Amino acid sequence: MRIDILTLFPEMFSALEHSIVGRAQKSGKIEVNFHNFRDFATNTQKHVDDMPYGGGQGMLLMPQPIFDTMASFPHENARVLMMDPAGRTFDQKFAEELSQESQVVFLCGHYEGFDERIKSLVTDEVSLGDYVLTGGEVAASVMIDATVRLIPDVLGKKASHEDDSFSSGLLEYPQYTRPEDFRGLKVPDVLMSGHHENIRKWRLRESLAKTLRLRPDLLEAYDFSDEEKAMLSDLKAADHAV
Amino acid sequence: MRIDILTLFPEMFSALEHSIVGRAQKSGKIEVNFHNFRDFATNTQKHVDDMPYGGGQGMLLMPQPIFDTMASFPHENARVLMMDPAGRTFDQKFAEELSQESQVVFLCGHYEGFDERIKSLVTDEVSLGDYVLTGGEVAASVMIDATVRLIPDVLGKKASHEDDSFSSGLLEYPQYTRPEDFRGLKVPDVLMSGHHENIRKWRLRESLAKTLRLRPDLLEAYDFSDEEKAMLSDLKAADHAV
Repeated sequence: MRIDILTLFPEMFSALEHSIVGRAQKSGKIEVNFHNFRDFATNTQKHVDDMPYGGGQGMLLMPQPIFDTMASFPHENARVLMMDPAGRTFDQKFAEELSQESQVVFLCGHYEGFDERIKSLVTDEVSLGDYVLTGGEVAASVMIDATVRLIPDVLGKKASHEDDSFSSGLLEYPQYTRPEDFRGLKVPDVLMSGHHENIRKWRLRESLAKTLRLRPDLLEAYDFSDEEKAMLSDLKAADHAV
Repeated sequence: MRIDILTLFPEMFSALEHSIVGRAQKSGKIEVNFHNFRDFATNTQKHVDDMPYGGGQGMLLMPQPIFDTMASFPHENARVLMMDPAGRTFDQKFAEELSQESQVVFLCGHYEGFDERIKSLVTDEVSLGDYVLTGGEVAASVMIDATVRLIPDVLGKKASHEDDSFSSGLLEYPQYTRPEDFRGLKVPDVLMSGHHENIRKWRLRESLAKTLRLRPDLLEAYDFSDEEKAMLSDLKAADHAV
């Protein structure tokens, strides 16, 4: 995958080098290119933003530097993402979609908004969630991390994503490691039993119970096995009995 | 505000130095402390993770290094946040809440999960959204950025947050800056008219229309003025007429 990032602050992406993204670059699974669009500003002061027509606070990125930066590298068939609170909310399905693209472009503003005409360059307006950030850089970093880890062979065994919450559709069961007794806090007996079938059932039940308690919305889209159906009605009955 | 970050990769937060967070540190509005919990591991190899009891892929952070790191600095009355997909979804209201705290602690895992007992140290399990990341560091960076910009006097006039989407409860209207005609793409006439009342009405109508089209869920919680109510029923009528 080729990733192109339009930003005034390429140094804000240095975090990614220490992560899975750095490893994926080294192994040649992805190529990351930064484009500082200030370099493309045609005005003598190299300004990239200006005041909004009609008045108002804040500055807006001007179309010219962004249009000319985009024209400077190939991006046919690329997904071009702009961070916008009004956009589609980023989620695991979106990350999976992006992980199958051959090229993804991120347009990052910082403090400023975008001149509306810039949106004509964009395929996807994306929101990371219902909160406001000072810049698109940290949001793009999150999307890149979530996407790159899904590219085949990027994650090693150590960090398999098959047991992830959301990829199974249920929240993850509680997990424990050594020691068995940490300052009086103990590991549940079943996990120490060595009885694989009991462990499997305990974990499935805990996953279902946690999802029912914290994220019942996830169950609406979930495709239940017969065993899971029986467990869930058990759990609901137990809830009512309390 | 004092921010404490427990992480194996403090260098992953370098992005924040280039942002509002770096400025807030310089002006003394916030103090950021990093705690590498590997320094607190008591085993000779300085391991911080181990295999899960009961089997399964992936590694889990052990309780000892985290408990002892937390014991090494004062954090009475602090909010202690752990990134967990099962947690409360981070949003603007949560950022506002955090911006009023005197101390916030972030527990960041990387690749690994957490031993369940670590949760006894935590006040808030938080999810950035319905997607999986390789580490808590980029998620914590987002939450810190969203929170710190809300601390009084941190944002200058240039980047006022009063017009933000979500803080008004509506999505933002389209904005334009120079030039008036960019390669055939023009700024709407009303914005060039200098007629403040018409501009105000156009913007409000565009905000309502955009929110109605893209995020009708936001309107459910919105407290409408009479003018807004009238505009909205107008917009709905126009929709039906099409």
